[in-house]
Amino acid sequence: MNVEQCEVCTILPSNDPILETQNWVVSLSPDQGYLGRCYVTLKAHKGDLADLTKEEWLDFTEIVKKIEKAIRKAFGAELFNWGCLMNDAFKIDPPKPHVHWHLRPRYRHSINFAGEKFEDPLFGYHYERGQSRKASAKVLENIKQEIQSKL
Amino acid sequence: MNVEQCEVCTILPSNDPILETQNWVVSLSPDQGYLGRCYVTLKAHKGDLADLTKEEWLDFTEIVKKIEKAIRKAFGAELFNWGCLMNDAFKIDPPKPHVHWHLRPRYRHSINFAGEKFEDPLFGYHYERGQSRKASAKVLENIKQEIQSKL
Repeated sequence: MNVEQCEVCTILPSNDPILETQNWVVSLSPDQGYLGRCYVTLKAHKGDLADLTKEEWLDFTEIVKKIEKAIRKAFGAELFNWGCLMNDAFKIDPPKPHVHWHLRPRYRHSINFAGEKFEDPLFGYHYERGQSRKASAKVLENIKQEIQSKL
Repeated sequence: MNVEQCEVCTILPSNDPILETQNWVVSLSPDQGYLGRCYVTLKAHKGDLADLTKEEWLDFTEIVKKIEKAIRKAFGAELFNWGCLMNDAFKIDPPKPHVHWHLRPRYRHSINFAGEKFEDPLFGYHYERGQSRKASAKVLENIKQEIQSKL
């Protein structure tokens, strides 16, 4: 397969990132069931963590530090669930995996932000995939700006 | 908290690893619902990915390459779900997180190994946490040896 056939590669240039580095783009998920939920996407089209260069990994480790610190400061997240899964890419044949991380901040206490209340009733337990909360464009922008202000 | 109070630190020395490096221990999960499912545990008692040193990260990236390659060769895994969650540690107060990764190999086809049939009916979808399959000590040992033979 080539880059033109990859959905992630197609979407990435139009992305409005929270944070961008040489190798990665951090963008807010439209689903804010976990306040500050983000994707951390590799710019290069690679389908497996085993294929990352040393530079790509070290760049990622700096993002982990920066984004966790910012979301802690912004909303008081207590821990962070990181996952690199890429299952969806294998629904089609040939598969088109493109490395991206799911970051779900987790909260012991509820948070009031942008006129809304965010809760994490399963704090201490595995994230709930059904805990979906599509945020409005305005709320997404507010969340993004709040995180960026703490970077 | 200190190291003595950490369950992971207590268990780690008695672990029978598949692979051990300067900073990490790879051990088979007793739950083989996903054939080759492992834990990759940091030796140092640190509770957050943001606290890892450059050396610990680079050591981890070598493990990703080695263990994925070995499990592909051993059983034909097609992709790998990686997650660093640590939710359980926050059930108690004060929380006692200790960095460890969950590695779930995923399979398009069923595998016959050690006289048993392993399947991944949700291939292409998020892993099922309920897909639990406690393997016998003999089967665990066979799986471990098969992976080790491909390292």
